[in-house]
Amino acid sequence: MSERINHRAFTERLMSAEQAAAFVKPGMTVAMSGFTGAGYPKAVPGALAKLIAAEHDAGGEFKINVLTGASTAPELDGVLARAEGMNLRLPYMSDPDLRRRINDGDMEYMDIHLSHVAQHAWFGFYGKIDLAIVEVAGITADGELIPSTSVGNNKTWLEMADHVILEVNKQQSAALEGMHDLYYGTALPPHRKPIELTTPRDRIGQKYLDIDVRKVVAVVETDAPDRLSPFAPVDETSERIADHLLSFLDYEIRQGRLSEKLLPLQSGVGNIANAVLAGLARGGYKGLTAYTEVIQDGMLELIKDGTIDFASATSFSLSTEGVEEFNKNIDRYRDRILLRPQEISNHPEIIRRLGCIALNGMIEADIYGNVNSTNVLGSKVMNGIGGSGDFARNGYLSVFMSPSTAKGGKISGIVPFASHVDHTEHDTMILITEQGLADLRGHSPKQRAQLVIDNCAHSDYKALLQDYFDRACSQSYGKHTPHLLGEALSWHQRFEQTGDMRPAS
Amino acid sequence: MSERINHRAFTERLMSAEQAAAFVKPGMTVAMSGFTGAGYPKAVPGALAKLIAAEHDAGGEFKINVLTGASTAPELDGVLARAEGMNLRLPYMSDPDLRRRINDGDMEYMDIHLSHVAQHAWFGFYGKIDLAIVEVAGITADGELIPSTSVGNNKTWLEMADHVILEVNKQQSAALEGMHDLYYGTALPPHRKPIELTTPRDRIGQKYLDIDVRKVVAVVETDAPDRLSPFAPVDETSERIADHLLSFLDYEIRQGRLSEKLLPLQSGVGNIANAVLAGLARGGYKGLTAYTEVIQDGMLELIKDGTIDFASATSFSLSTEGVEEFNKNIDRYRDRILLRPQEISNHPEIIRRLGCIALNGMIEADIYGNVNSTNVLGSKVMNGIGGSGDFARNGYLSVFMSPSTAKGGKISGIVPFASHVDHTEHDTMILITEQGLADLRGHSPKQRAQLVIDNCAHSDYKALLQDYFDRACSQSYGKHTPHLLGEALSWHQRFEQTGDMRPAS
Ligand SMILES: CC(C)(COP(=O)(O)OP(=O)(O)OC[C@H]1O[C@@H](n2cnc3c(N)ncnc32)[C@H](O)[C@@H]1OP(=O)(O)O)[C@@H](O)C(=O)NCCC(=O)NCCS
Ligand SMILES: CC(C)(COP(=O)(O)OP(=O)(O)OC[C@H]1O[C@@H](n2cnc3c(N)ncnc32)[C@H](O)[C@@H]1OP(=O)(O)O)[C@@H](O)C(=O)NCCC(=O)NCCS
Repeated sequence: MSERINHRAFTERLMSAEQAAAFVKPGMTVAMSGFTGAGYPKAVPGALAKLIAAEHDAGGEFKINVLTGASTAPELDGVLARAEGMNLRLPYMSDPDLRRRINDGDMEYMDIHLSHVAQHAWFGFYGKIDLAIVEVAGITADGELIPSTSVGNNKTWLEMADHVILEVNKQQSAALEGMHDLYYGTALPPHRKPIELTTPRDRIGQKYLDIDVRKVVAVVETDAPDRLSPFAPVDETSERIADHLLSFLDYEIRQGRLSEKLLPLQSGVGNIANAVLAGLARGGYKGLTAYTEVIQDGMLELIKDGTIDFASATSFSLSTEGVEEFNKNIDRYRDRILLRPQEISNHPEIIRRLGCIALNGMIEADIYGNVNSTNVLGSKVMNGIGGSGDFARNGYLSVFMSPSTAKGGKISGIVPFASHVDHTEHDTMILITEQGLADLRGHSPKQRAQLVIDNCAHSDYKALLQDYFDRACSQSYGKHTPHLLGEALSWHQRFEQTGDMRPAS
Repeated sequence: MSERINHRAFTERLMSAEQAAAFVKPGMTVAMSGFTGAGYPKAVPGALAKLIAAEHDAGGEFKINVLTGASTAPELDGVLARAEGMNLRLPYMSDPDLRRRINDGDMEYMDIHLSHVAQHAWFGFYGKIDLAIVEVAGITADGELIPSTSVGNNKTWLEMADHVILEVNKQQSAALEGMHDLYYGTALPPHRKPIELTTPRDRIGQKYLDIDVRKVVAVVETDAPDRLSPFAPVDETSERIADHLLSFLDYEIRQGRLSEKLLPLQSGVGNIANAVLAGLARGGYKGLTAYTEVIQDGMLELIKDGTIDFASATSFSLSTEGVEEFNKNIDRYRDRILLRPQEISNHPEIIRRLGCIALNGMIEADIYGNVNSTNVLGSKVMNGIGGSGDFARNGYLSVFMSPSTAKGGKISGIVPFASHVDHTEHDTMILITEQGLADLRGHSPKQRAQLVIDNCAHSDYKALLQDYFDRACSQSYGKHTPHLLGEALSWHQRFEQTGDMRPAS
């Protein structure tokens, strides 16, 4: 038997990635593992991309619908995008080739709250799932699956798909075994019950994924690491954003609204979120918890130095050094981390109960606090909403962060009117740029606008925003959310036309 | 003792509305009962408005902050708005005088998800609550409060306020006693527990509101009915909207995605929602349930004829005839209705668990499914978001409905770009106008746009929308959510300038 496959029914189905890929047929809906660059299948998608390319070369049509947990990696989204092999992709993605194809209008992309994906699949909104391709870390002697570095929607894909291809990746740490908490108590309404999780530490499920071996058509052995795009080094801008956040948390503690243990932290994806994690280490906190989606290197460091005592997530996205550190100090980490299905890590019920502090990046905010997380200039998708809505709507605090400008100052992160809205004025409490922090809680739209202009706007844009707001306050049709409709999107339009949001002077 | 006040500590505090109003001082934050025109205080706000007017006449300043459950009535919002007595008002409102003052820019209005109000108050986001003015139906011999026709945020206001004024309204039906379910199990994070409610019928709380009598500074007796603005008679447009919804529900049943008992219905406010309730009676359903905010006359009828077997809500907004009907057939209704605090009626945890079918009105939707529920032309607030976001985000189905045009055809309810977003593309599944229904589930933005144009747009606007969309698909900066920024808001701008969204031909 193979080292990681301890059950004969699975070894009997061992084959090459090429043989396995042949199970995929044009038009199929294929659900794959993978969440923020972790735990995605490494071999079959590449083999499939070759089959697709060959079919296209021969003048045929070969496209599939791809469902995942969240973003994957070049070996999955990249190869399939370059092969023009996808009709539809959902949910969150971040691969440059895939992004380009979507924004060229060559394929369809559905951007969904991560907490909604599994239930919408069960509700039947995405039709039948023909095939699941799921990476696991091993198969036990009882024929159960040891999940890999991400759980994502794997439970749902394995249950719903007609057939299953497993990739068993022996490069994933053997220490992962036992670090998962797979909740099998979900149901369709009207049969749902409360989810009895009251702290990030609580175990409510099982350690292994169930699988009906009769559905398994192929098992493929792989030996490849998760591939993670490196973060930008923490620069002064992100450090200042982190500092504003830390001062704010201190203030909330002094006001008695937060204890020194804070509340479970959710930390988004991206460079800013990463810088904030690094900042937290400076904050002098001890014994915090995280109830979040992704454990990155930065989170490991916080666990190592005692800042964070326990972290619940759905994905373990570590760099090569992170994996080394994890394996070296395994005893420190093993009992301090749990990986859960994303329907649990992002569940509105639990996020509200725990009172998470939601820390997410954004593309832009308008002066009233409407936040665009997804569409640059209203039309070009960056990544997707991910779980930011799950946490922002339901958390105790919803914080959105961004540099005050992008593209070397040619774009303002604070605009008169958001060119796309992912988080409405009803869902945003705190906006932070390197310029400062605007606390929008308890304020009306006009009060919020003044705070955002004063505290968050870059000096290149502050007077322009103030001018817009002042004129809107006197000329707007209604004066609850004053706007000048003819100018509301003019900054974005100017960037489209001149490459700079600033007017020629 | 008074008929409705069976405890001496309260009779001792009996006084006139004028005497009670004198407890209100300028700058106070005053929390009042009231939800969609039911259960609001009838006497003290009017007396207070007179005090405020007198102070203003004398050259003084007198404004307060007013927190409620949702909309109230002319006797509260109207009189205080006309007296220019409010700095800030939250949340949902619908009074014409109040709306005018807000849109004239004379006062601040904060529009909040109804499920967020109580917890944000407890989190300390609105500061200290100086005084609560709450209508009740009576006071028991044990000194407990029998809630009135709405529960709203009363539990929170009574607990948080420094002082309390009670209005005991003897015109509210004595039969209300026992029809409330007041959950006292809420807590601040990290101490929250699951809310053990799994069907709309479940009782999880107590029948009476607790009150610390030492905080009660005044008790005022009143004898006045709730005042409800009548609905527009059901016209052909709303009937066609209701028919599209009914056909859709039938289709979902045939597809096996819904059972014949459907799932708990939430029905929004407004004329369209009312017409849909009337339509449901034609649908041939039996034994349905409602988990909603408001019980209107239409809902009573559905209970009477067996269409609805049980309804949970937070407010009982009946017309004079509705109250008569309720009192006449009290045995039919008493065990089929429960009124709960709005943090429970609108709780994300429960709405998702029950899988509610969310049916709400809207002002406009754009072709991609972004919905504006609140701001006409992006700036002039109509009512507020109410609970529509609580239900749309967390329900099993989120349906938004509107006539395809407003103001005699001069405004299109389907626009290129929503002028305000309350429900994002991630939160809307079904759009309905009298023209037809667009099922957006499982579709990308461009696929959604074509469905919305084909099925929902009015013929006066269909070709214009198609033209915008076609040109956007070829000229947009990004082609994920194609837009022409220079034209996106031009329809709204044209209406501002010419009074008609249609271009002069
Ligand atoms: C919004 C988001 C893209 C910001 O990412 P980030 O890495 O923190 O921030 P950065 O400032 O480094 O921006 C990332 C990119 O967006 C670009 N960008 C940021 N703001 C922009 C704007 N207003 N206009 C145009 N581009 C912008 C940056 O220039 C950068 O592009 P580059 O890689 O070509 O240089 C990211 O947070 C995101 O995808 N959020 C949505 C999902 C989410 O919140 N998930 C959390 C829970 S899963
Ligand atoms: C959006 C909403 C105002 C629609 O109300 P409705 O009574 O169902 O629909 P109507 O078509 O009768 O419209 C009501 C008013 O809005 C106006 N209106 C509707 N669409 C409009 C538009 N696109 N532009 C301008 N005015 C518009 C109508 O003309 C009408 O005004 P009038 O009273 O001056 O004639 C109402 O549903 C609402 O307030 N929703 C938000 C809160 C909510 O959803 N609550 C439910 C859970 S609490």
